Amino acid sequence: MLGPMQIAFTLEEITGLVQPRRVAGTSAEATIRGIASLNKAGPGDLSFLSNKKYRAEVGKTRASVVLVPLDFAGSPAPGQSFLFVEQPSVALGRLCARLEQALWPKPAPGVHPSASVAAGAAIDPTATIGPLCVIEAGATIGAGTHLQAQVFVGRAAVIGAACWLMAGVVVAAECTVGSRVRLHPGVVIGSDGFGYEFVAGRHEKIPQVGTVIIDDDVEIGANTTLDRSRFSFTRVGEGTKIDNLVQIGHNVVIGRHCMICAQVGIAGSTTLEDYVVLGGQVGVIGHITIGQGAMIGAQTGIGHDVPPGAAMWGTPALPHTQEQRLFILRQKLPELFKRVSALEEKDSIS
Amino acid sequence: MLGPMQIAFTLEEITGLVQPRRVAGTSAEATIRGIASLNKAGPGDLSFLSNKKYRAEVGKTRASVVLVPLDFAGSPAPGQSFLFVEQPSVALGRLCARLEQALWPKPAPGVHPSASVAAGAAIDPTATIGPLCVIEAGATIGAGTHLQAQVFVGRAAVIGAACWLMAGVVVAAECTVGSRVRLHPGVVIGSDGFGYEFVAGRHEKIPQVGTVIIDDDVEIGANTTLDRSRFSFTRVGEGTKIDNLVQIGHNVVIGRHCMICAQVGIAGSTTLEDYVVLGGQVGVIGHITIGQGAMIGAQTGIGHDVPPGAAMWGTPALPHTQEQRLFILRQKLPELFKRVSALEEKDSIS
Amino acid sequence: MLGPMQIAFTLEEITGLVQPRRVAGTSAEATIRGIASLNKAGPGDLSFLSNKKYRAEVGKTRASVVLVPLDFAGSPAPGQSFLFVEQPSVALGRLCARLEQALWPKPAPGVHPSASVAAGAAIDPTATIGPLCVIEAGATIGAGTHLQAQVFVGRAAVIGAACWLMAGVVVAAECTVGSRVRLHPGVVIGSDGFGYEFVAGRHEKIPQVGTVIIDDDVEIGANTTLDRSRFSFTRVGEGTKIDNLVQIGHNVVIGRHCMICAQVGIAGSTTLEDYVVLGGQVGVIGHITIGQGAMIGAQTGIGHDVPPGAAMWGTPALPHTQEQRLFILRQKLPELFKRVSALEEKDSIS
Repeated sequence: MLGPMQIAFTLEEITGLVQPRRVAGTSAEATIRGIASLNKAGPGDLSFLSNKKYRAEVGKTRASVVLVPLDFAGSPAPGQSFLFVEQPSVALGRLCARLEQALWPKPAPGVHPSASVAAGAAIDPTATIGPLCVIEAGATIGAGTHLQAQVFVGRAAVIGAACWLMAGVVVAAECTVGSRVRLHPGVVIGSDGFGYEFVAGRHEKIPQVGTVIIDDDVEIGANTTLDRSRFSFTRVGEGTKIDNLVQIGHNVVIGRHCMICAQVGIAGSTTLEDYVVLGGQVGVIGHITIGQGAMIGAQTGIGHDVPPGAAMWGTPALPHTQEQRLFILRQKLPELFKRVSALEEKDSIS
Repeated sequence: MLGPMQIAFTLEEITGLVQPRRVAGTSAEATIRGIASLNKAGPGDLSFLSNKKYRAEVGKTRASVVLVPLDFAGSPAPGQSFLFVEQPSVALGRLCARLEQALWPKPAPGVHPSASVAAGAAIDPTATIGPLCVIEAGATIGAGTHLQAQVFVGRAAVIGAACWLMAGVVVAAECTVGSRVRLHPGVVIGSDGFGYEFVAGRHEKIPQVGTVIIDDDVEIGANTTLDRSRFSFTRVGEGTKIDNLVQIGHNVVIGRHCMICAQVGIAGSTTLEDYVVLGGQVGVIGHITIGQGAMIGAQTGIGHDVPPGAAMWGTPALPHTQEQRLFILRQKLPELFKRVSALEEKDSIS
Repeated sequence: MLGPMQIAFTLEEITGLVQPRRVAGTSAEATIRGIASLNKAGPGDLSFLSNKKYRAEVGKTRASVVLVPLDFAGSPAPGQSFLFVEQPSVALGRLCARLEQALWPKPAPGVHPSASVAAGAAIDPTATIGPLCVIEAGATIGAGTHLQAQVFVGRAAVIGAACWLMAGVVVAAECTVGSRVRLHPGVVIGSDGFGYEFVAGRHEKIPQVGTVIIDDDVEIGANTTLDRSRFSFTRVGEGTKIDNLVQIGHNVVIGRHCMICAQVGIAGSTTLEDYVVLGGQVGVIGHITIGQGAMIGAQTGIGHDVPPGAAMWGTPALPHTQEQRLFILRQKLPELFKRVSALEEKDSIS
C-alpha cells in the first residue's frame, strides 16, 4: 500500500528495471499498484526480503511479486512471482527511483511567467524555474536544474546542473551550489554567521561577508540552515547528506560523504573530515576537528577534537564503550552508597 | 494589556460569551479593552482566577471585570464586576476564541489573482486561497479552508475542510491533510525521508515515494518538518498537537491526542501510541514503540521501547523517579569518594 | 580568499576605513582582492592579527596588507604593508561592513510590481519592498526598511525603520518589530503559543491572541520561531542577538543584550534578564527567571530559577564548576567500585 498515489507497473516493466537472475511463479495480477512490507502487502502489491530476520514472512505474504535474494530457498504460492536478485533493497531502490520520476515529473524547461527574474541572471535553457521564484541579478542556474516554486536565489549565487531546489528554498547572495544537489523545502543557505564583538555593553555585529559552498551530490533536509562565513567560506563536501533542521555555523568545513542526522548543531570554524557520522541532536563546539570516519551517538555533546575512527557518546562525550559502562555503574550508585555505609558501620563498631 | 491590538467588548457581550452563573458588582467601565493577569490588569481590563495560588491577588486587582470560580468567597470592589463561572480558564478561552476571529478574520472565499493555480486543481468555492500561493495539478482544497499566503500545495496533495495553512507552509506532492488542521508558518509536510545505502564508498539515495497523512484536528507548529515515508506513509493521528521546530522522520506513526513539545526529534519507523507526551528537545530512536500515555521528560533520549503509562527521563532514559534519585546521589559523589578514602586509610592503619 | 565574490580595495581606501596610527612598508599589490587568515593569505589579500597566539604567523604570511596591533614588534616583508591599529578585529569589522554594503546593496526604494500590498498598508516612501512580498491591511513599514523577497507582513503588524527582513520571513498579524532589526531567512514571528486544555480526552486549543514585540537592534537567525502570547506579549529586548533554529515560547520575556545560540528552546512565560548568555541547544523550562548576566553552557537543561551572574551546566543544571568536578569523578566510578569491593573483601577476611 502506497498512500493515495496511483502507480501501475506491469510485471514486464518490473523485470526490466530490476533485472532478476531468475523468476519463479507467475503473478495472478497483471498490474502492480503498490509496494508494501511482507506482512502488510496484499494482492497487486510488490514486496521484498532485505533483512534475513523476516525470512519466515515470505511464506505468509499475500504480495503478488516478491524480490528475494539469490540464496532464498522458498517457492512462490500460486498466483505469486518471486524475482531472485542480488540485493533486494537495491532492486527496490531502482523501482522507487522510477516511481519518483512518475510522482514528481520535472516540468518542461522554461521560466514560469509568475517568477521574478532580474536582468542579468543566467538561466540555462534546459532549466525549469517554477512559479513565484525570485532570481536576483548575476545569479546562474545550471542545465536541467529545477527550482520547484517560491525559491529565492540571491545576487551572484551559482546553482549547478541537475539540481532540485524545492518549495521555499533560499540560496542567498554569492553562495555556490554544485551539481546534482537536492535541497528540501525551507533550506536556508547563506544566512549570516553568528558573530559579534562586545563593545561598551553592546554586541556589535561582525559583518559576515564570506559565502557557502555546497559541493556535488549533496542532499540537505527541510528547514536546515547553513551560515555564510565571516570571510572565506563555509563548505559541505561532495556526497555528504544532511537531514532536517540541522544548523551549520559559519566557517564550518564538512568533508565528503558524511552523514549528519536531524537537529544536529555544529558551531563555527569546526572541521569534519570525510565519512563522519553524527547522530540526531548532536552538538559540536566550534574550532575543533572531528577525524575521518568518527561516529558520534545521538544527543552527544562534543567539546574537543575527536580522533579519526573514534566512536563517542554522552555529554561531555566519552568513548562509546566507556560511556556505556558508566551508564551501568551509575544505576548501581544507590547500592554503592549502601555498601559504603555498611562498611562504615562495621568500622565504627569494630 | 493586550499589545497593540484594539479590542472592545461590552459587559453584555462578555456575559453572553461566558454565561456566568452569577454576577456581582458593576464595572465602572462600559467597554473592556484588554485582558491581563490579576496583578497587571488596570481599569478597562478583564482578568481571571484560574490557579488558586493567586486567590489573594483578586482582592488587590484593578481589573474592571474578573472571572472567578463558583466557590470564590470575595466580593468585588466598587466599580468592579465579578463573573462567577465553573472554569474561569475555559470561560477565558471562549472570550479569546472570539478575539481570535476579530484579529484574524478569514478573508472572503476565492482565489487571489496573484496565486498560481495549475489546471486540474480542485478548489472548493468556499475556500480562500491567499496571495502568491502555488497549487499544483491534481491538488484538492476543501470547504472553508484558508491558505493565508505564499503556501505551496504539491501535485495531487489533499487538504480537507476548515483548515488554516499559514504563510509559507509547504504540503508536498501526494500528502493528505484532514479537516480542521492548523499548520503554522514554515511547516514542511512531505520532505524526503533520510534514507541511503552505503555502496562503494558513497551514500546512494533510497527514493522516498510514500506520503504523509495528517488526520483531523491536528495542529503543527512553525517550521516543523515531517518526512514522507520510503513507501506507505508517515502519519499523525487525530487531535495530536505538535509544537515548533519538531522533526518527524519517515514512516513514523503517531497516535491520537499526543502532545509533542518543541524541538523534539523522532527517528524513522517509530510508533507513538495514543496520548503520549514528549517534553521539549526529546530525541527518540527509530524502530521502537512508545506505549499509550507515556510521559517523557524534556531533553530525554529514548533508545528502547517504552511501556504504556511509563514516565521516563534522562539520556539514556530511565524511569523518572530512578533518574531523580540518581541525580541526587550524583551530587554526593565527592563525599562518597572521601568516605571511601577514609575507610581505606583506617584500613591501612589497622 | 573570499569565495567567488569580487572585491577591490585600494590601499588608500583601506587606510581611509581603518585609520591606522602608523603604516609600515608598501604593498606591491595596488588592489586588495581578498581577506584571509595569516596562514592562508596570498599576494593581493589582506590579513590581520587579532589573537596573540598567532603572532608568529605574521612573519610568515604572504598577505599584501596586515592589520597589526599598536604594540606589534615585527616589520613587513618587502612588498608588504603593516597597518598598526588599536584593535585589528574592530578595524577588520569596518572593512567587512563596507564589503557587506558592496555585496548586498539595498535596492532603490519602492514596491516591486510583483508584491501584493493590501489597501490600507502604510509603507514609508524610503522603504524597499522586494519581489513577491505580501503586506496585509493595516501593516506599517518604516523608513529605509528593506523586505528582500517573499516576505509576509500580517494584518496590523508594525516594522520600524532601517530593518532588513530577508527572503521568506514571516511577521504575523499585530506583531511589532523595532528599528535596525535584521531577520534572517525563514524567521517566523507570531506563530501561536502551544497552549491547550485537556477536556474530555481531547486537547482543546487555548486561543493565543497576544502578540510579539521585538525591540530595536535585535538580530534573529534563520528559521528561528517566536510564538505570540496567550494575551499580552512575548518580547525580545533591545540589542539581543538570537541564532538560527531557536524556539521562543509564548509569553517569554527576554531582556536586553542577551546572546542566544543556535537551537535553544525557551518554554512559555520564562523571563531572561539582561545580558544572559545561552549556549547552543540549551533547553529552559517555562515559568522561571534567569538572572542578569547568567551564563548557561551548551546543551544544558534549566529546570529552576538561575540567580544573576551564575554559570550553569548539565542536565539538570548545576553550577558549572560542580558539574565539571562531577564529570571527572564519574569517570572514576569503575575504580571506586573496585576500591569498595577491595574494602569489603578485606573486611570479610578480617
